[in-house]
Amino acid sequence: MADKLIIFDTTLRDGEQSPGASMTRDEKLRIARQLERLKVDVIEAGFAASSNGDFEAVQLIANTIKDSTVCSLSRANDRDISRAAEALKGANNPRIHTFIATSALHMEKKLRMTPDQVFEQAKQSVRFARNMVSDIEFSPEDGYRSDMDFLCRVIEAVIAEGASTINVPDTVGYAIPELYGEFIKTLRERIPNSDKAIWSVHCHNDLGMAVANSLAGVKIGGARQVECTINGLGERAGNCSLEEIVMAVKTRKDYFGLEMGIDARHILAASRMVSQTTGFVVQPNKAVVGANAFAHASGIHQDGVLKARDTYEIMRAEDVGWTANKIVLGKLSGRNAFKQRLQELGVQMESESEVNAAFARFKELADRKSEIFDEDILALVSEENVTHDKEQFAFVSLSQHSETGERPHASIVFTVAGLEVKGSSEGNGPVDASLKAIEAHVKSGAEMVLYSVNAISGSTESQGEVTVRLQNSGRVVNGVGSDPDIVVASAKAYLSALNKLQSKADRVAAQG
Amino acid sequence: MADKLIIFDTTLRDGEQSPGASMTRDEKLRIARQLERLKVDVIEAGFAASSNGDFEAVQLIANTIKDSTVCSLSRANDRDISRAAEALKGANNPRIHTFIATSALHMEKKLRMTPDQVFEQAKQSVRFARNMVSDIEFSPEDGYRSDMDFLCRVIEAVIAEGASTINVPDTVGYAIPELYGEFIKTLRERIPNSDKAIWSVHCHNDLGMAVANSLAGVKIGGARQVECTINGLGERAGNCSLEEIVMAVKTRKDYFGLEMGIDARHILAASRMVSQTTGFVVQPNKAVVGANAFAHASGIHQDGVLKARDTYEIMRAEDVGWTANKIVLGKLSGRNAFKQRLQELGVQMESESEVNAAFARFKELADRKSEIFDEDILALVSEENVTHDKEQFAFVSLSQHSETGERPHASIVFTVAGLEVKGSSEGNGPVDASLKAIEAHVKSGAEMVLYSVNAISGSTESQGEVTVRLQNSGRVVNGVGSDPDIVVASAKAYLSALNKLQSKADRVAAQG
Repeated sequence: MADKLIIFDTTLRDGEQSPGASMTRDEKLRIARQLERLKVDVIEAGFAASSNGDFEAVQLIANTIKDSTVCSLSRANDRDISRAAEALKGANNPRIHTFIATSALHMEKKLRMTPDQVFEQAKQSVRFARNMVSDIEFSPEDGYRSDMDFLCRVIEAVIAEGASTINVPDTVGYAIPELYGEFIKTLRERIPNSDKAIWSVHCHNDLGMAVANSLAGVKIGGARQVECTINGLGERAGNCSLEEIVMAVKTRKDYFGLEMGIDARHILAASRMVSQTTGFVVQPNKAVVGANAFAHASGIHQDGVLKARDTYEIMRAEDVGWTANKIVLGKLSGRNAFKQRLQELGVQMESESEVNAAFARFKELADRKSEIFDEDILALVSEENVTHDKEQFAFVSLSQHSETGERPHASIVFTVAGLEVKGSSEGNGPVDASLKAIEAHVKSGAEMVLYSVNAISGSTESQGEVTVRLQNSGRVVNGVGSDPDIVVASAKAYLSALNKLQSKADRVAAQG
Repeated sequence: MADKLIIFDTTLRDGEQSPGASMTRDEKLRIARQLERLKVDVIEAGFAASSNGDFEAVQLIANTIKDSTVCSLSRANDRDISRAAEALKGANNPRIHTFIATSALHMEKKLRMTPDQVFEQAKQSVRFARNMVSDIEFSPEDGYRSDMDFLCRVIEAVIAEGASTINVPDTVGYAIPELYGEFIKTLRERIPNSDKAIWSVHCHNDLGMAVANSLAGVKIGGARQVECTINGLGERAGNCSLEEIVMAVKTRKDYFGLEMGIDARHILAASRMVSQTTGFVVQPNKAVVGANAFAHASGIHQDGVLKARDTYEIMRAEDVGWTANKIVLGKLSGRNAFKQRLQELGVQMESESEVNAAFARFKELADRKSEIFDEDILALVSEENVTHDKEQFAFVSLSQHSETGERPHASIVFTVAGLEVKGSSEGNGPVDASLKAIEAHVKSGAEMVLYSVNAISGSTESQGEVTVRLQNSGRVVNGVGSDPDIVVASAKAYLSALNKLQSKADRVAAQG
């Protein structure tokens, strides 16, 4: 065990908690499947007790994912733990991850509890959880800013109660690698039963050091589990990014000497899926998964860079899933070619009727766009997956016009619960007019907090993919739409967001 | 000196070298001014010998910037060094930064030189440079992967020749904090005259650890200069990011105990300027400057997060320039109010006629958009600065229409060298049709490698800012355009890119 590094992905829990990154149950399942394909050891699927929606998502993932351990977060109380255990019933390998804050600041300001109360609650909660599930992880929240003596006392007690993984979060992203590494090392040295648990690190990126801190926890501190998220998604500056941790441990195996179960070739697809689902863009200069991370994959052909590739690149782009962006299908491609390409791209369809629906969209797209790239197919399928739920609102057709000196105008036809309605409006631009035309009829009152466009293959000939983030009464949802016409893509994204706003339940927020 | 950390910004050199991030001379000057406002100690303005354009940019910055040291990169040969010295003639504090690769791989594959040849060339180049300028920095390229004995020999020799700063690059982003820190420490211990120079670190982010590596070089290694870029801009996964280094050293002053000259309140404006100019987006979960970096500044109002602000945030958003996004000006605002707001935003106009031109655009915008945010003003001014050069192509008017079931169509009027021309085209969408309508007339043959849209204040009512990146015959340029109508913004961006493509000179590529 000592030479294996456990990769614990919390994209669906800590990542999803980021303002604006919330996902539907179906979106979560889709990402969980991709994480299983990546061979992530542990998937933290959510925080079951925080809302009915989260409970259902954890349950669905627990029932579906078979290879990875499925974990639910849980506050350190019996009700939360029971909910987590219930949601995890169908899992092959269930884990309950319970936490309570141990820093003076958090105990006083957030919990309003004394250290002794926290100590008792931590102990009793692990004891309670241990009766339901054998795999228990315990996190002292804001652990890195906690008093060392108190932390040792709490951790020793929860290990004695049967916690098998001890995770020490740098909740606010305050740590420095050598200090964090020594902190973990000291804990392990001072706690008499520390060898009875696997030690885990959970770092936030507020000072840009989440990856380095995590690795110091591993190398200096002796931790053997890293908690991370795809694209470093997470609150504020996010969590430690999975792709960077994995590639650092692989590339510097000479130093870390650790094995991992991860199949890195699925990293890029996972990154794109998370980015498309949440509307959180990945910057081009992001390590491993950014468009420029590998010079020769940036779409810009610089002779010097190409020649010098071996001299400047320490990883191979292919190893994390980059391939040349090539035309794969066209107007004349048949259903079998389409289906085969889906399989090659690692996209799993639930049924033949889903394949048929996606193929119909593909043909429709191919009529309007001569060259179909992998990105187009992924976008099309992504939209398919996102919107195939019983929809309240669905796009039918749109007509829009703008001309210098006149107010832009749009007319849109869409269905509400199956019935066609028509709306028209002016706006600041054609996109604004189209969305106002929808809103004029729906009157959701939602506030738009994000509007973002990705031209999927880099030029305006490709499909535009639009993300619209709406907020209403404290709920925040993302809608995604794609179309070669950016105005249509925007309308589709807006309708998709409205659909989610209708079906989404409230939830309790947690910090990790 | 020992307790001051020198911040060396290389956004305009190493950052700009990133494929797709190239900037015009005027854009570089604008960013240099912002860096001076930030009180950066050293600005690496370019690589004078690489092209006439780079020479002119270094010269312009050297003649304009008075507070910061202005530096030019230079290969280790007399011609490059002479060009650098010539470009720097007008600088108050000129620095020549000369480099040569010292790793076995780079010496053999790239330079095709023996170690002894490299040793001689390094020594002679520093001697040559020292006769022209007193402030000389030397970098052994790929230093971290170089043989320690050889590296000590080279560095001792160049210090003896008068190099006052020794920079040790992790050119390929291969280092781990504790190893890199020890590497610098060993060099300083083994080299007899090491105390005659200031030691500097230059780290790349391929494994996500550029910031942590740099800080280890400072804390463990004793370096007192960090080379970094705004937004971590740079080739592949980029360089160490200035904003993260600065805020880590400030936030953890308890550990680093170092002073800096930086005025951090200008960080956010610098980040936005670099992002707008290059078209490189900043991801929302980017530390310090990402939209979500500070929970309460994300535009999403979560009660829990707001209440818990002190419990979870280790920095204050205001300290790096975040302010609430408020409506600052409207249709009735006068020229004085506009000018005052420009000053508050740190925007410097060259002349009253520039203020007038910007104000005219502001009034035009205010006619179409009732609420004007700071972001709108910055976009407007950015466009003003970008396009006020003698333009070959300029936008006049546009009419476009799209309707489900028909091919989108656009007609555009623009000027070519002052003469109006008209173009029409169909396309996959209205944006595509508009750009094809331009291209139909201009026939640039350029390939579009990036199309990106930012809705500046988060909703579609705001101005859309579009970046178009074109590539032609190995040259890559970015054009930026903004307008409440996304189709118009796209056409403006395309014309702006065409203008740059016309005026841009070839250059030699360098790695650092």
